[in-house]
Amino acid sequence: MTNIFDNIESEVRTYSRAFPVIFERAQGSWLYDTEGNAYLDFLAGAGTLNYGHNNPVLKEALLDYIRADGITHGLDMQTSAKQAFLENLQKYVLEPRGYDYMVQFTGPTGTNAVEAALKIARNVTGRHNVVAFTNGFHGVSLGSMAATGNAHHRDASGIPLTGVSHVPYAGYMGSDLDTVKLLESMLDDASSGLDKPAAVILETIQGEGGLNVASYEWLRNVEALCRKHEIILIVDDIQAGCGRSGRFFSFEEAGIQPDVVTLSKSLSGYGLPFAVTLIKPEYDTWKPGEHNGTFRGNNHAFVTAAKALETYWADDALQNELAEKITHLGERLKQMTKGYDTSLLKAKGRGFMQGLECRNGELAGKICRRAFDNGLIIETSGADSQVVKCLCPLTITLEELDKGLDILQEAVRHTLQKEIRAAS
Amino acid sequence: MTNIFDNIESEVRTYSRAFPVIFERAQGSWLYDTEGNAYLDFLAGAGTLNYGHNNPVLKEALLDYIRADGITHGLDMQTSAKQAFLENLQKYVLEPRGYDYMVQFTGPTGTNAVEAALKIARNVTGRHNVVAFTNGFHGVSLGSMAATGNAHHRDASGIPLTGVSHVPYAGYMGSDLDTVKLLESMLDDASSGLDKPAAVILETIQGEGGLNVASYEWLRNVEALCRKHEIILIVDDIQAGCGRSGRFFSFEEAGIQPDVVTLSKSLSGYGLPFAVTLIKPEYDTWKPGEHNGTFRGNNHAFVTAAKALETYWADDALQNELAEKITHLGERLKQMTKGYDTSLLKAKGRGFMQGLECRNGELAGKICRRAFDNGLIIETSGADSQVVKCLCPLTITLEELDKGLDILQEAVRHTLQKEIRAAS
Amino acid sequence: MTNIFDNIESEVRTYSRAFPVIFERAQGSWLYDTEGNAYLDFLAGAGTLNYGHNNPVLKEALLDYIRADGITHGLDMQTSAKQAFLENLQKYVLEPRGYDYMVQFTGPTGTNAVEAALKIARNVTGRHNVVAFTNGFHGVSLGSMAATGNAHHRDASGIPLTGVSHVPYAGYMGSDLDTVKLLESMLDDASSGLDKPAAVILETIQGEGGLNVASYEWLRNVEALCRKHEIILIVDDIQAGCGRSGRFFSFEEAGIQPDVVTLSKSLSGYGLPFAVTLIKPEYDTWKPGEHNGTFRGNNHAFVTAAKALETYWADDALQNELAEKITHLGERLKQMTKGYDTSLLKAKGRGFMQGLECRNGELAGKICRRAFDNGLIIETSGADSQVVKCLCPLTITLEELDKGLDILQEAVRHTLQKEIRAAS
Amino acid sequence: MTNIFDNIESEVRTYSRAFPVIFERAQGSWLYDTEGNAYLDFLAGAGTLNYGHNNPVLKEALLDYIRADGITHGLDMQTSAKQAFLENLQKYVLEPRGYDYMVQFTGPTGTNAVEAALKIARNVTGRHNVVAFTNGFHGVSLGSMAATGNAHHRDASGIPLTGVSHVPYAGYMGSDLDTVKLLESMLDDASSGLDKPAAVILETIQGEGGLNVASYEWLRNVEALCRKHEIILIVDDIQAGCGRSGRFFSFEEAGIQPDVVTLSKSLSGYGLPFAVTLIKPEYDTWKPGEHNGTFRGNNHAFVTAAKALETYWADDALQNELAEKITHLGERLKQMTKGYDTSLLKAKGRGFMQGLECRNGELAGKICRRAFDNGLIIETSGADSQVVKCLCPLTITLEELDKGLDILQEAVRHTLQKEIRAAS
Repeated sequence: MTNIFDNIESEVRTYSRAFPVIFERAQGSWLYDTEGNAYLDFLAGAGTLNYGHNNPVLKEALLDYIRADGITHGLDMQTSAKQAFLENLQKYVLEPRGYDYMVQFTGPTGTNAVEAALKIARNVTGRHNVVAFTNGFHGVSLGSMAATGNAHHRDASGIPLTGVSHVPYAGYMGSDLDTVKLLESMLDDASSGLDKPAAVILETIQGEGGLNVASYEWLRNVEALCRKHEIILIVDDIQAGCGRSGRFFSFEEAGIQPDVVTLSKSLSGYGLPFAVTLIKPEYDTWKPGEHNGTFRGNNHAFVTAAKALETYWADDALQNELAEKITHLGERLKQMTKGYDTSLLKAKGRGFMQGLECRNGELAGKICRRAFDNGLIIETSGADSQVVKCLCPLTITLEELDKGLDILQEAVRHTLQKEIRAAS
Repeated sequence: MTNIFDNIESEVRTYSRAFPVIFERAQGSWLYDTEGNAYLDFLAGAGTLNYGHNNPVLKEALLDYIRADGITHGLDMQTSAKQAFLENLQKYVLEPRGYDYMVQFTGPTGTNAVEAALKIARNVTGRHNVVAFTNGFHGVSLGSMAATGNAHHRDASGIPLTGVSHVPYAGYMGSDLDTVKLLESMLDDASSGLDKPAAVILETIQGEGGLNVASYEWLRNVEALCRKHEIILIVDDIQAGCGRSGRFFSFEEAGIQPDVVTLSKSLSGYGLPFAVTLIKPEYDTWKPGEHNGTFRGNNHAFVTAAKALETYWADDALQNELAEKITHLGERLKQMTKGYDTSLLKAKGRGFMQGLECRNGELAGKICRRAFDNGLIIETSGADSQVVKCLCPLTITLEELDKGLDILQEAVRHTLQKEIRAAS
Repeated sequence: MTNIFDNIESEVRTYSRAFPVIFERAQGSWLYDTEGNAYLDFLAGAGTLNYGHNNPVLKEALLDYIRADGITHGLDMQTSAKQAFLENLQKYVLEPRGYDYMVQFTGPTGTNAVEAALKIARNVTGRHNVVAFTNGFHGVSLGSMAATGNAHHRDASGIPLTGVSHVPYAGYMGSDLDTVKLLESMLDDASSGLDKPAAVILETIQGEGGLNVASYEWLRNVEALCRKHEIILIVDDIQAGCGRSGRFFSFEEAGIQPDVVTLSKSLSGYGLPFAVTLIKPEYDTWKPGEHNGTFRGNNHAFVTAAKALETYWADDALQNELAEKITHLGERLKQMTKGYDTSLLKAKGRGFMQGLECRNGELAGKICRRAFDNGLIIETSGADSQVVKCLCPLTITLEELDKGLDILQEAVRHTLQKEIRAAS
Repeated sequence: MTNIFDNIESEVRTYSRAFPVIFERAQGSWLYDTEGNAYLDFLAGAGTLNYGHNNPVLKEALLDYIRADGITHGLDMQTSAKQAFLENLQKYVLEPRGYDYMVQFTGPTGTNAVEAALKIARNVTGRHNVVAFTNGFHGVSLGSMAATGNAHHRDASGIPLTGVSHVPYAGYMGSDLDTVKLLESMLDDASSGLDKPAAVILETIQGEGGLNVASYEWLRNVEALCRKHEIILIVDDIQAGCGRSGRFFSFEEAGIQPDVVTLSKSLSGYGLPFAVTLIKPEYDTWKPGEHNGTFRGNNHAFVTAAKALETYWADDALQNELAEKITHLGERLKQMTKGYDTSLLKAKGRGFMQGLECRNGELAGKICRRAFDNGLIIETSGADSQVVKCLCPLTITLEELDKGLDILQEAVRHTLQKEIRAAS
C-alpha cells in the first residue's frame, strides 16, 4: 500500500528516505514514530534543536503567548515579542561580548540571511565579487547558492552561478599550502583575475562541507587580510553558532569580529523558522524595505528565542557543561578510530560538531543505516557524504550521549569489519 | 528616549515606520498595541492572514499539538502532521478541482518556493531564460529577484540580475497592444533576441505591482503560447492564492492549469512561515535533496494549514460569503472614486484584492497615514506606491468591512480635498 | 577528389557552400574564379566593398605605400598614415557635418568597435544594462553577441548572454504599436524590470536582420528618449555607414547625433580590416590602454581609407550618382514584386540596402542559387534568411546594376513560378 | 601647436604616449620617424613582426598579388590565396609535426580567435565554465576578457565578467605549491565550488603577464588532468607561437597536443590582421556560420602568411639560427642582472621572449624611457608593468641584437644607479 508521501510529495525529499518511518512526537533528545518506537536524535534538525525537541521551558513560554493571542505574524512591525528578543539578544549576547551589531530580521531561513549579507556587502563596497571557500555551504537560493561549493546543489540551479570566486579553505592542501597566503597573493596581484571582492564569506567549522575546521590563526589571518583590503568579513554562523561550537558564536575564541554575521537554525531554540543578519552599524546602509520578506516577523520564534537566551546564556552553566560533553565526545570518537588506518576512519571536527570521516560516502551511509536500525538518528556530510556527523542537542545528558555513541560504535565496528573482510 | 528598535534594529525596517506603535495582541481583524489601542487590519500580514489573526479554530489545533509534544521541526522527514496536511490538500483542494500536482516543501518563504519553481523549470527544459512581466513581484533572493520588476529591490542586489526577460503585462499599453501577441511575435522570431525561455512566470493579479489584473482571456492565451513553445507555465499564487481571489487558486476561473504553482502567505492560515511548490508529476524530476532548506518541515504550519483546509475549503460556505464581500468592497470603492477624475483616483483590482489607484505615491501615502490616525491599518503598492490596497481578512465581518471602508473613505475625501485645494 | 578546404577548413565556413568555386581575381563589381568565370557581385563583401573590388585609385595609393616601406603594423603609435587618415576624416566627414567626435582605433573588426562602444557607455554611466532591438546584429564576440538578436549565433555562445535587454524595433508590431512608446513606458516605470540602461544601441537599417528600416521620426524619438533618461545613444553604422544609406552616415537625414558611432566594413574602402568607434569628447573617458588590440594600427587600411575619403567624399558627386542608382534599384525591385501577393514577395529596405522579402528562407535561398547559376553573387538576410539582399558596390555602373537585376528578376520569376505551380 | 592626434584621437591610446614621435617607414628591425631618426625595434608590434618590418620576400609576394588584382576581401569564400595558405600550413607546419587540426578562420584578431575557441569548447562539452590562469592575457572582447587576469582591462568592462575561474599559474606560489595539484584537488572535489570546466586555457609563456614560464612537466600535468576529466585543452599561442618560443608552436617541446590552438600576431608574417583557431577534427562541431566576422577572409594576410611559411619553416635554418640568438639573449640578460639583488632585477622568460623583472613598474618604465632616448623601442609587461620585455624580430642580426642590448644595459645601469643612490 502506498502512502500519501509516495503519492504526492515531490521526489526532492531526502531524509524521509533515510528514515522511512512516520514521526509523531518528540521530547528532548528523543523522537517517537507512530508505532511508538523511540529514536535517539544525533541529527537534531541538522543543528536546529540545540536545546532539544520541544524544550519544556520554551514550550511553556510559547503556549502562554499563543493562549494570550500574542501577535503571530508581524511583518517588520514593532511587537512586544520582538522587543523582548532584541533586549535579550543585547543583554545576554552582544553586550557581554562587547559586540556592536544592528539586527536585520530577514526572511526566516538561513539562505535568506545569507542573501541579505551578500547584498549589503555588495552595496556598501560597490563591488560585485565575493570570495567563498571550497566545501562551504550557505544555502540554495540563487545568491547563496553561488557561494556554496556543492555540485549536486549547484548543478540544480540550471543557470551559471555568478559573482563568487571559490578559493581553498583552511588546510585544503594539507600543510603544503597556507591558503590565506594564496588568497593574499591573488588579492595583491592586479593581474590575478580575482576581482577585488565585496566580501569574504566563511564558516569557522564547515558543517555540510564535512566538519572541516579553520584554526584560530587562519581566521585571524583572514580577518587581517579583509581589513587590509577593505573587504567585508561575513561569518556564516548558521550551523556553528548558537552554542554549537561551545560558545555562543563560533568565532569568539579566535578573537575575530566579523563585519556581518548570519544566524538561524537554533536561534529560535524551538525549531521555529528564524534568521537574522547582524551588521556592524557603519555598514547598515539599507534603505527601508530594500530587502524584505513576508515572514520576517515570525513572533512565535521571537518568543522562544528570547526565552532561550535568558534561560541558557545568562550565565556560564550551559557552556561549562557543554565543554565536558565536547571533551567526552572527542575522546570517544578518537577511541572508535583506534586500530583503523586514517584513510579508512578518522575523527574530525570541533566543539559539538564532531564526527568520523570514512574512506567514502558508501561506507558512511552504511554506518548510519546500521545505527538507525538500532535506534539512532545520525547523518552524513561532506562532498561525498563521507563524514558521519554527531549533531546532538547541546542539552543531551551524558547518559544519552553515551548511549548514542555506543550505537554508533557498534555500527562502525560492524560496518568496517564487513568492509575489511570484503576487501581481503 | 530611544527604544531598542531604534538602537539595534537595522535601517531596513519599513512597516514599523508607517505604524510607529508596539503591537502586542491580535484577534480576527483587529490588532492591539501596548497602550491598549485597537486597529482594524486591512493589511492582514500583506495577505498572510486570510483567516484573521489567531483564528480560534486553528489556535486550538496548534495548542493541542504543542501540548502533545508533536514534532516541531522535521526537516523533510515524514511526520503525522505533514501527512494530515498532504491528505487534506489532496482531499479538499486538488481532487475536487481535478488537479494533479506533486507537492514540494521548500524553505518556508515565498521567495524560496519561487526559487524552486525556477530551478525545476530550467532543469526540465535545459534552458536558462525565464519570461517575467512588468510590475511582477516574486521575492528578493537573487533568483526570484531577477524575476521581480521593482528597481528599489533590484538595485539593492549589488550585482546584475540575469536569466530573466521582462515583457509587458496584460494591459500594459492599454488597448493599443495585445501584449501576448508581442510575446508571441518575439518567441516566433528566431532573431528577436529573446532567448527561448524555460518558463513564463506570472501573477494573475499583481499584488505588489499595484493590483493589475490579467483577464481570463489573456491568461488562456499565455497558457496556449506556453503549450505551443513547450514552455513551463508558472503561476505565482503566493499573494492571490489561498482564497484571496475569491477561489482557492486565483487561476481557477480562467480555466488554465499551470505546470507549476507557488503557494505561501496564507497557506498555514495562522501566519506561520510555510511555502510549497506544486509541480505537475511529469516535471517533478528533482534528485533527492537538490533543493533543500533547514525549515522545510515547519510542522506547526502543517497543523494549522491542515485545519484551515478542512475548516474553510470542505464546502462552499467561505467562498459564497466571500463573493458577497467582494461585490460590496468593489461597489464601495467605486463609489469613493465618484466625482474624481480617473487620473486622480481609480478603483482597481479583482477578488478581495482591490484598492484605489491615486495620482501618485505621495497622495496614496497621505491617505494611508490619515486612515492609520483613525485606527485603520492599510498600505500601498505599485511602482510608485500609488495604489491603496485593501487586503482584509477573508473572514472579516460585513460590519468590520464597512467600518474600515468608512475610515478609508474619510481619509480619501480629506486628503483629496486638501490636494485639490492646494492645486487650485 | 577532395580539396584542401574540405580537408582542413572548419565546418564553420558558410559562403563557400553557397558559392562552391575558387575565386582568384576581382575588379570593380566583378569576381573571377580559377576557371576564368566572371561573377557580378551583389554581395560586395557583405557591404565591405562599397567602392568595388581593388578600386584602382586606392590600389595605387596602397602599392606606393608598400613599395616605400611605409609602416604596416603600428599598434597605436603615431604614424604618417594614421595622421593622414585622421586629417581626412576630420576634413571630409566630421567638419562638413558639424560633428565633434574623438576617434578610437579599436581592433580592426566591427565586433571589436561594438565591444568598445558598449564598454565606454557602461563606464561613463556606471550602469550595466544595454537596450538593443529585435533583429539587431552587432557581432559575435561575447559582448556584441549579447546585443545581437539571432538565435543561431546566440546559442553558439554556450553561455547565457547577459547585460542586454531586447525590445521591439521600429515597426515590429506593424502600426499597432509605437515601439518607442513601449520603451518609454518601461523606462519611466520603476517596476518594469528593465534596468536603466547605459546605452541604447541600434542600426538605422538592419542589414543582417532583414533590411528593416527605422523611420526618421522613430530615430528622433529614440534620441529624445535617450536624452531624457541620460542614456548613451550608440548607432552601429558598420553596415549602413560609409555611404551605403546614400549619405556617409546612415543617420544624417534623420537629423540625430548619436553619442557613439561604430564604423567598419567599407571604412578602409579596399576591404582591409579596419574599425573605429567615434565618441563624443565628453564621453571619451578611457584610461590609456584600457581597451586594446594587436591590430588596431592596420596602416594599410589607413592609407586606403584616407584615399577613399578624399576621392569620394570631398564633393557630392558620388552621393548624387548614388541617389539615382538608389531610385532605380527601388523601382526595379518594386516592379519585380508586381503580381505577387505581399506575403509571397515584397520589396524592402532603404538607400543602397534594398531587397526582396520572400515568404520564407527556402524560397529566398532558391532564388539566390538560381542567380548564382547565372553569374550573380547575391545573398540573403533576416531571421529565416528570407530576404534577398542587394548590396552592390556604390560604384557599380547603371549597366552592371541592370545586368544584375535582370538575372535576379529571372531567378525570382523562375523560382516563384515553380513554387506557385507546386502549390496549386 | 597641437596635432591631429591630440585633437581627435581617443584618450585610450597608449604606445603613442611612450614613443611620442610620428613613425613613417620601417624595414627589418628598424623604425624611422618623420624627422629621419632611426629606432631599433625590440617591441616588434608586440610580437607581431617576427620576420621584421616589411620583410622583402613577403613584400614582393604581396605587391605581386595586389598588382594582379588578387581577391582582397573574401568573407569565407574559397580563394586561391586561402588555398595556398592552407596547403602551406598543412605541408610546413601540421604534417611535419604529425598534428591533425581543422583550421577556423575567425575574425582577424587574436581576441576573436579566443572567443571562437571558448565557444567551441563550451558547445562541445555543454559546460559553461572555463579555467584560466593568474596573469593570463587572452584579449579584451567580453568573452576573452573574462579569461584575462588584468584588472586594468577587466574593470573597463563595466559589467561583471562571468564563465571563467582563475587559478594559480605554474610557479605562482613558488616551490610551496604544485599548482596543478591544487587544480586537480578542486576538480576531484565535488564540493569545491569550481564548476567542471569546458576548457582549460593557457599560455605556455605569459607574454603580457610578465614572461612567466610554465615548465614542460607542468604543461604535461595540465594536459593529463584535462584528459582525465574530459576537459578541452586550449593553448593560446597568439604571442608565443609562430616561432617566438624557438619552435613554431610554443608547446612542441613539452610534447603536449592541445585540443584547440589559437594563432594570430605573427601569423601573417607582415603585420597584417590575421587569426586562426585550430581545432581537433572531433571537436569541429560548428554549424555553418555560427561564428562569423566580416574580415575573416583577409586575403592579403593569406598571401604573406603562405609565403612566410614556405620561406621560414620549410627547413630548420631559422630555428637553428634562432637557438643561437636565444642563448645569446639569455646570457646577456643574466649578465645585466649581476651585482643586483634578485628582488631588484631578475632575468626571466623563455625562447625569444625574455626580459628583466624589476622591483616595480616605475623602475621598468624608467629603463624603457632611457632606452628610447637612446634609440631603442622596448616595452614592459606584467601586473605592475614591472618586466622589461625583449620581443625582437626573430630575423634580427646578432649585431643588431647586441646593439639593442647595449642600449638596454646602459639604461638599466643608469636607472638602477640613480635608484640605489636615492635609496641610500
